[in-house]
Amino acid sequence: DHAASTPLTPVALEAMLPFLKGPGANPSSVHPLGLAAREAIEKARVQVAALVHADPAEVIFTSGATEANNLALRGVVAANGIKRAVVSNIEHPSVNETFAALGRQGLEVNAAAPEAIAGLSSGAGLVSCLWVNNEVGTVQPIEAIVSALGTLKPRPLFHVDAVQAAVATPIDFRKSGVDLMTLSAHKIGGPQGVGALIVRRGVKIEPIVYGGGQEFGRRSGTENGVGIVGFGAAAEALRTRLTADREHYLNLGVELERGLAESDLGIRRLALGETSPHIVALEWPGAEADFVVLLLGREGVMISAGSACHAGNRETSQVLRALGLSDQRARSIFRVSFGPDSIAADVERLISSLKKIARQAKSRN
Amino acid sequence: DHAASTPLTPVALEAMLPFLKGPGANPSSVHPLGLAAREAIEKARVQVAALVHADPAEVIFTSGATEANNLALRGVVAANGIKRAVVSNIEHPSVNETFAALGRQGLEVNAAAPEAIAGLSSGAGLVSCLWVNNEVGTVQPIEAIVSALGTLKPRPLFHVDAVQAAVATPIDFRKSGVDLMTLSAHKIGGPQGVGALIVRRGVKIEPIVYGGGQEFGRRSGTENGVGIVGFGAAAEALRTRLTADREHYLNLGVELERGLAESDLGIRRLALGETSPHIVALEWPGAEADFVVLLLGREGVMISAGSACHAGNRETSQVLRALGLSDQRARSIFRVSFGPDSIAADVERLISSLKKIARQAKSRN
Repeated sequence: DHAASTPLTPVALEAMLPFLKGPGANPSSVHPLGLAAREAIEKARVQVAALVHADPAEVIFTSGATEANNLALRGVVAANGIKRAVVSNIEHPSVNETFAALGRQGLEVNAAAPEAIAGLSSGAGLVSCLWVNNEVGTVQPIEAIVSALGTLKPRPLFHVDAVQAAVATPIDFRKSGVDLMTLSAHKIGGPQGVGALIVRRGVKIEPIVYGGGQEFGRRSGTENGVGIVGFGAAAEALRTRLTADREHYLNLGVELERGLAESDLGIRRLALGETSPHIVALEWPGAEADFVVLLLGREGVMISAGSACHAGNRETSQVLRALGLSDQRARSIFRVSFGPDSIAADVERLISSLKKIARQAKSRN
Repeated sequence: DHAASTPLTPVALEAMLPFLKGPGANPSSVHPLGLAAREAIEKARVQVAALVHADPAEVIFTSGATEANNLALRGVVAANGIKRAVVSNIEHPSVNETFAALGRQGLEVNAAAPEAIAGLSSGAGLVSCLWVNNEVGTVQPIEAIVSALGTLKPRPLFHVDAVQAAVATPIDFRKSGVDLMTLSAHKIGGPQGVGALIVRRGVKIEPIVYGGGQEFGRRSGTENGVGIVGFGAAAEALRTRLTADREHYLNLGVELERGLAESDLGIRRLALGETSPHIVALEWPGAEADFVVLLLGREGVMISAGSACHAGNRETSQVLRALGLSDQRARSIFRVSFGPDSIAADVERLISSLKKIARQAKSRN
């Protein structure tokens, strides 16, 4: 279940420990301990910027991707007097709910499939599309959207939630043509409670948290220094590992498909076009995905049905519905996600646990 | 410089380590690891609630006090259609800047000395007053304000920033008559990047961060689980220590005053009426406080001039001006703050360092 939250990468923990055990200074203090805390945060800013090829001055640290998405959307709508926005229909709740709130305040919001959003964007001030979907791993045509938006005058601002993309996709923010990009620490081996919004130089944005003027005046509040240091270390580790990780996830996915085919359980991988290799959406016709998740948990195998944010919610995932799946099919779909520490034995254990669940179900019938 | 940020209390670090080193689950996941993360957060909620005698269901975890202050003020203004607010003139920037932003959106905001705010509050929808000032430690008459507000119909909502009050003042939220109260973890031995807003049952509040609906739908985003666990442990430790801490700070303050009197440096404690014993405001006529802070830092003694949030800012503190101090006097004032790990030797070192600075200044003249 790495797509819900990854364990802390050992190098991130190592980087954090001296600050956790240390004297604990406010990075805004001008005494030596404060300056050391400041220096550590600025080092992390360089590390996070390097992961996605952005300038450090474009990195605004937030309390997580949810806040970053809120800041991106509400911040540019407020700062630029935007009246209409276009959003894909397969977003994370932090984008959907933020647009819902903006809609209540008068913003016109049009939702459409990712392929259709550029066509709707003439005259819009803001377009938002996530890069890799968190529930099923589909990759959206970000480059094509950027090209299409480039033909519009005025060109709308373009926000991309890259939380899951950053896990296994090389990102070049500078070349991307994207204006605002959301990242999360705890999906890439960093700690929970930290994220970043990358804001292209020159893009006007109004804060959503006001105060002491930290983060270039764009996000106030004493910085989560320890968390930011962990985010930086995790980003640096991922940068050096990304190609290998991608290969590793592809191999695990192949193993999983092969194992499932051999198992004869009738579980199949959803055919979704291009997906990020760390997320594999599986369909088990006739099974209740929520129940499968619970039973797998008892076997020590942790996965999700839909996103963790919707856990326990019996409504059909909006994302699965947007992909054209019936409610009944959607309920039989669950998500397997890999991390750098996942190994072939984890895949074997998943398959043997699924077999056990199938046997138990059969013996009850 | 504990008032800027405290070191992590050992019990907080101990509570956090298993989660830092553990498998790292999303507390919204329904598998066993997710449920364990959820349980840890709910335990911390009980611990933080116990510190201030609130109900756990009244505790909303945030990314810090700045976000909590933003949520309190903007949240109730939006949810209750408030047109006018009254605020004290000695607030933290996270309150002042939030009101400034609300003012730009049409809210009428009246600022006044703490003693005068109740008199201005008839017809206001919201009143905000911090309990213990962060720059000079003054204690505001919260009880008297609550009483005065109680005579108004309709009674305005009352928000109190209790970040510094929580350090050394027993707080009973249930009995206080306060509607919204802000707390910070890293001022009481917890980690940076975590805070809480306590919201009295029944008070309507609109989120400022939308998404997956965490924190009773009032603050979305994957919880900073590790940070929250540290906050809870620090709150519990403080609860058992509070009376002793208070006594300890009083003693250190007496030591400091005695040492300064004996030193004959001309440094005196500001007479400010009732103050929280962990914050001591000192005045050194003729000295530049910013310079004193830098020189003390070189001696290994960390203190602040004004709040850390304003470090490096050459403007006179609004708080010191509100206390009636001239710009010139205000520039000579610095803040010493104690934590539970401060000892008499720290006070001696501060005084001997101040003597050294005075000698060096004399030899240069």
